[in-house]
Amino acid sequence: MSTTQASPHTLNVALIGYSFMGAIHAQAWRTAPSFFPTDLTPRVTTVCGRNEYAATEFANRFGIPHVETDWRSVVNDPTIDVIDICVPGHLHTEIALAALAAGKHVLCEKPLANNLDDAERMAAAAASASANGIFASVGFNYRRTPALALAQRMIANGDLGVIRSMRGQYLQDWLVDPTFPLVWRLDAEKAGSGALGDLGAHLIDLAQWVSGHNIDGVSALSRTFISERPLAEASSGLSATAATAATTTATTETATDDSGSAMGTVTVDDAAIWLATTDKGAIGTFEANRFATGHNNALRLEINGSLGSIAFDFERLNELEYFDNRSTTVNNVEVGGFRRIHVTKASHPYLAAWWPAGHSLGYEHTFVHQVADFVAAVAANTPPSPSFEDGLNVQCVLDAVERSAAAHSSWTQLNP
Amino acid sequence: MSTTQASPHTLNVALIGYSFMGAIHAQAWRTAPSFFPTDLTPRVTTVCGRNEYAATEFANRFGIPHVETDWRSVVNDPTIDVIDICVPGHLHTEIALAALAAGKHVLCEKPLANNLDDAERMAAAAASASANGIFASVGFNYRRTPALALAQRMIANGDLGVIRSMRGQYLQDWLVDPTFPLVWRLDAEKAGSGALGDLGAHLIDLAQWVSGHNIDGVSALSRTFISERPLAEASSGLSATAATAATTTATTETATDDSGSAMGTVTVDDAAIWLATTDKGAIGTFEANRFATGHNNALRLEINGSLGSIAFDFERLNELEYFDNRSTTVNNVEVGGFRRIHVTKASHPYLAAWWPAGHSLGYEHTFVHQVADFVAAVAANTPPSPSFEDGLNVQCVLDAVERSAAAHSSWTQLNP
Amino acid sequence: MSTTQASPHTLNVALIGYSFMGAIHAQAWRTAPSFFPTDLTPRVTTVCGRNEYAATEFANRFGIPHVETDWRSVVNDPTIDVIDICVPGHLHTEIALAALAAGKHVLCEKPLANNLDDAERMAAAAASASANGIFASVGFNYRRTPALALAQRMIANGDLGVIRSMRGQYLQDWLVDPTFPLVWRLDAEKAGSGALGDLGAHLIDLAQWVSGHNIDGVSALSRTFISERPLAEASSGLSATAATAATTTATTETATDDSGSAMGTVTVDDAAIWLATTDKGAIGTFEANRFATGHNNALRLEINGSLGSIAFDFERLNELEYFDNRSTTVNNVEVGGFRRIHVTKASHPYLAAWWPAGHSLGYEHTFVHQVADFVAAVAANTPPSPSFEDGLNVQCVLDAVERSAAAHSSWTQLNP
Amino acid sequence: MSTTQASPHTLNVALIGYSFMGAIHAQAWRTAPSFFPTDLTPRVTTVCGRNEYAATEFANRFGIPHVETDWRSVVNDPTIDVIDICVPGHLHTEIALAALAAGKHVLCEKPLANNLDDAERMAAAAASASANGIFASVGFNYRRTPALALAQRMIANGDLGVIRSMRGQYLQDWLVDPTFPLVWRLDAEKAGSGALGDLGAHLIDLAQWVSGHNIDGVSALSRTFISERPLAEASSGLSATAATAATTTATTETATDDSGSAMGTVTVDDAAIWLATTDKGAIGTFEANRFATGHNNALRLEINGSLGSIAFDFERLNELEYFDNRSTTVNNVEVGGFRRIHVTKASHPYLAAWWPAGHSLGYEHTFVHQVADFVAAVAANTPPSPSFEDGLNVQCVLDAVERSAAAHSSWTQLNP
Repeated sequence: MSTTQASPHTLNVALIGYSFMGAIHAQAWRTAPSFFPTDLTPRVTTVCGRNEYAATEFANRFGIPHVETDWRSVVNDPTIDVIDICVPGHLHTEIALAALAAGKHVLCEKPLANNLDDAERMAAAAASASANGIFASVGFNYRRTPALALAQRMIANGDLGVIRSMRGQYLQDWLVDPTFPLVWRLDAEKAGSGALGDLGAHLIDLAQWVSGHNIDGVSALSRTFISERPLAEASSGLSATAATAATTTATTETATDDSGSAMGTVTVDDAAIWLATTDKGAIGTFEANRFATGHNNALRLEINGSLGSIAFDFERLNELEYFDNRSTTVNNVEVGGFRRIHVTKASHPYLAAWWPAGHSLGYEHTFVHQVADFVAAVAANTPPSPSFEDGLNVQCVLDAVERSAAAHSSWTQLNP
Repeated sequence: MSTTQASPHTLNVALIGYSFMGAIHAQAWRTAPSFFPTDLTPRVTTVCGRNEYAATEFANRFGIPHVETDWRSVVNDPTIDVIDICVPGHLHTEIALAALAAGKHVLCEKPLANNLDDAERMAAAAASASANGIFASVGFNYRRTPALALAQRMIANGDLGVIRSMRGQYLQDWLVDPTFPLVWRLDAEKAGSGALGDLGAHLIDLAQWVSGHNIDGVSALSRTFISERPLAEASSGLSATAATAATTTATTETATDDSGSAMGTVTVDDAAIWLATTDKGAIGTFEANRFATGHNNALRLEINGSLGSIAFDFERLNELEYFDNRSTTVNNVEVGGFRRIHVTKASHPYLAAWWPAGHSLGYEHTFVHQVADFVAAVAANTPPSPSFEDGLNVQCVLDAVERSAAAHSSWTQLNP
Repeated sequence: MSTTQASPHTLNVALIGYSFMGAIHAQAWRTAPSFFPTDLTPRVTTVCGRNEYAATEFANRFGIPHVETDWRSVVNDPTIDVIDICVPGHLHTEIALAALAAGKHVLCEKPLANNLDDAERMAAAAASASANGIFASVGFNYRRTPALALAQRMIANGDLGVIRSMRGQYLQDWLVDPTFPLVWRLDAEKAGSGALGDLGAHLIDLAQWVSGHNIDGVSALSRTFISERPLAEASSGLSATAATAATTTATTETATDDSGSAMGTVTVDDAAIWLATTDKGAIGTFEANRFATGHNNALRLEINGSLGSIAFDFERLNELEYFDNRSTTVNNVEVGGFRRIHVTKASHPYLAAWWPAGHSLGYEHTFVHQVADFVAAVAANTPPSPSFEDGLNVQCVLDAVERSAAAHSSWTQLNP
Repeated sequence: MSTTQASPHTLNVALIGYSFMGAIHAQAWRTAPSFFPTDLTPRVTTVCGRNEYAATEFANRFGIPHVETDWRSVVNDPTIDVIDICVPGHLHTEIALAALAAGKHVLCEKPLANNLDDAERMAAAAASASANGIFASVGFNYRRTPALALAQRMIANGDLGVIRSMRGQYLQDWLVDPTFPLVWRLDAEKAGSGALGDLGAHLIDLAQWVSGHNIDGVSALSRTFISERPLAEASSGLSATAATAATTTATTETATDDSGSAMGTVTVDDAAIWLATTDKGAIGTFEANRFATGHNNALRLEINGSLGSIAFDFERLNELEYFDNRSTTVNNVEVGGFRRIHVTKASHPYLAAWWPAGHSLGYEHTFVHQVADFVAAVAANTPPSPSFEDGLNVQCVLDAVERSAAAHSSWTQLNP
């Protein structure tokens, strides 16, 4: 019997946060090197959270050796190479700036920040650090969905020709129930914005990245349909439906602690919609909505070009619909139609590392791919993508949407 | 052997126009009384068109006894009870006003008119005529799609609860080919507007009728992606693709005659998109697009309410998707999901007149239902629906969309 | 004003039967010449039914001038050119033989007959008559579904290569309710067999016609799940569900009159399944089932060949799914997938006669196409297709399935 | 900073095999305890494979400390608690029997064995071992697909009523290319049978487990469409298509070594189809096919009962289609239809351990669930499911199918 040895080059990662995003990042850091092996092997050595008991339980679940409650200690720990930020948006800036200053690579969950100012400071810090070989990336994991990566590659290949129009929707329904409580995501101070920042950020990044276009102007509208909700403690007598809803998002949401009175005010948007133009002449409609009854996580994107179209729905994440406008006839028979590509072939992005054709991946794998890409970039001493600059770009669009919505949908141009 | 007799009460119809709409109306007038019999039996006795040869050929095909080339004679023919207007929009107003003045019932194709002014005059004339038992209706045939009529009925029943959001798209792709010629639908003088008036009119009427909401404000954007196209005669050397495209819309389009130079200017929009609010507090995104590669006639509408959602795509016109938010569990098992209702049961709108469950109807049948509803209303001496007032309402929204698009998407409120 | 004239060459048709099939045939005879004009114009001049009152009502609905109650008079009426047989299967043989003997063309509903013997006599008579320019055809209308006609054309073109496997299902659910009454279709004397003859006949004809293969052996199994049902009169107290079911098939079914006792015995199969081999080396599984809960008319066929596959479901009759195995990559990107062809383009079978691309047809149009093809063949003095020989061929397969099912699924070879 | 500790109770697992199944099992053993924690924590301490170099590389990828080349040493290693058998079927029996004899729990990939005899010996050994608290389970991982587990739970709840019919298909297409080489799965000595044992075993187990019925008789047919294929070495000049196909299944297949001549004989079935009856009165059609062009891994199951139906396709593994026949009307509106349940809610099987609603799982997770269920059973000192007896049951059906196919489809009853 022989005994194996660990790789000599390891990348020590500290995870800041241990709820929904923390868990999926932990799983991704562990899985990535098995399927996307490089000379540099990441391992999460520390998890950091304010609640030591919960953080310890988390560390035990994922075999993480150390637990910390103060992120500043982690950022200054000389054994740590990467700070992975998985906490709510209002904490991103301070942690990321400190980490970069301490010479750590940073992977930061999206949206980059809760406002444009913070995002700008982060992008500037990342640009400086990059010159010193310290890299930062923002977690737009949906880019790593194989079907969307395939769409991006096809469009970059020119397979869609001149893109004229796109439509994007990110639809959820967890706020339809009026008894659903006032969780942190409904508090502008912590979450920045509502559906817009949470869902819209993904949508904007994807639409831009897949199409290769940048949004350069918007007209927007947003709504808070239910403006008063039970405070977290007041919501103990929830109906079964609300309880279910609460459960289904339990890993995401931490109820606000400050109760006393029964109801509180929702300070973010429930839904935002906007029209957009792009720098390359396309137009688009967009929607981020937490009141779209019947949809749990319907992130949809359709792009129409002169040579073809693609359509995607994250609820069927292994599929890409594709219409090829170049070869719509066979033997003089008209056979044009949207085809359903089951994006599970070895030649598809990321798929060679996984199973034989036809064996679907899940949401989780987008995070594994994100880690794999991040590690590969660091190993090659090149900046990982998407950069904080990309995150800032999305933030600029979010900001323009907010400004337009606040100004009665007036057209709002983005600075070039 | 016995010999049957014709119904004693007939409604004599004159058809103005004999191309795509003319043909489907002719078929509908003939079919309706067989499947929706009433005491009043319509029959088309005259078809009117400028090209006598073509009109005669049409009359022979449909067994129509008389042919006319001057619509004024038809309108003043004392044997005629109904004038059915199936010509381009710029001719609607004059014919409809004359017909109502002559005491004829009028069924007029959509959009009601090419501008708001004309539409207002038509609605006023129809209101006056109605007082004298002379009725007018506008041809929003999609209302008669059983799946959409079912959706409308469900929403009117309260099955969707409070409606918060909707999204509507009417997607076609026949203009993607730059060699497609400058047909009349691309000429603002004849068509009024482009995708907006042609496709958007249907979309607006449906969204409002199905939801029971009225659009009360918009922010809009429109584009003409290809502004110069071959004049009809110059386009004889079309590529195979363009030729096919031309063929597929051949019954719809009459090429412009004024050639001489090779290219002409497109004076209408290729695509229009808009945000909207409604009088009952919902928001929506809308798109009318002739550049949506891969779509021939994708009229899509989704409506989300607090108790449920519906979704529809005209390319699958016999289906309605429905999410029921009230009963998503069975035996404590979570079974919520969008269901595909095959709208072919006897209890569905219009279906009792047709075939056993499971036997789909086609596009044509929406026109049969339109005629059946029109005749039933006339027989009952009650105004048919949708009225010219409804057509004017749609025209007001179209007008607001055009004004907003012309004013850099500025918010445009509709008058109450 | 000019007055049009009827075509000088007419083909006088007598319709035997006036229920579901009678109505859709009447509509088809009237519609066909408007959209598929030839020098020969059919018109239904007589309808024949035992119930004079009902037949007269039917004649009035469709503008048919004469009514008869004795089919023998009709068959011998010298003014009649075509006998169109729309009555239950046990009456087909006698009427068809008499009509052919009287020199009338015959269009006969499927299945050709209730047993092999009768079918053989009919095919022999048709062969003789054909030599004299008298033609007979069996009503496998589903062949005229544009999507299936497209599939047939593609396979005939060689687009699927060597066909290896197929699977066919015809699924309905109207017998799931045990209180559904004992209608004639459940009586072996009138219907011959149950799901097998009614649904299986269509399935077999389609599978053979579309694939170009002939079934040459089967192993089969059939079941009657509910063997006792209320007699028609005893079923007056039906539950709401059964009443609905009864309504949905009301035009099809005539309840048996012989009651007295409350319950009667179902003498046909509720479902039949079989394995098959073909003369060209393919294998297939087939199912005809009236207990497939949730399906009203799901006629499904999938065929896999070395170069591609097609799949079809009649509940989406305007669509053909197609996988092209020859060109699954574009720019080295793997883009293979089943595409949804919306079979509504002018280049698709039958579609040039109808509306612009994207405007769906319905079940009814398969009958219009059937009439158009029949008339075109008669006008050209050539035998229409499918012939009685084709009907006999299907009957041979049905017979083999019944024999195998009766012999404990033993392999049953068809005679070449 | 605190330091976490490993769980005191660990279950040491040895993996026999390191290709496709080995890799996914390794990932599952590592992931399961993080998401389904119990007092007993499994960890893979040894991997065993004939090729030491490859096994070592595998061990490094997954952090497995020990490598072995002789499975007998592993089976007798006193530190090992569980033997996980991931090698081809002809090796299952010997290893499993030795492992059970050595007092190890066994998890064995499907099919249980390559013939009935071996399966019977394995089931007998497992029954004996179970009495001593040593447990064995067979890897029908598809049972752990949440959508199928939901279907099973619903049927067990009675939500489908009396089940009448089912249809199952497992469709792949990797053998369509005649230049695809003669891999071990095409060799009867190693694989036992072809599509039947590989795909059919899953299909039979699922159909029986989900429905709660046992197949008690079959009539079957099988085919080898291409009987000669290039030996592995002779296939170096494969066309691009075959090369791609080879790649997509590369982790699964090890080419046979014995070449010398260019072509070899396929000794297993390419496709098998069968009719079946069940002990509770249902009928079904089944197909296992590696020539179904366009399908990579389409495992489909539909079950129809008196109260409802379910349908599933593994290519959309997060969805279950469900028709509820009990409540098809709302407010007297007919709203019956197959609904698409996105099986990602916390109340669905296995889902509470994962992400918020709407975030899909992949193929891999079925193995994580399998490990979780196995460990939970062992921790509770109860036999895990499915047992070797269940594996034998499937083997009996496979054997009956083979015997029927060999006897010209004659009906073959299973012993009770």
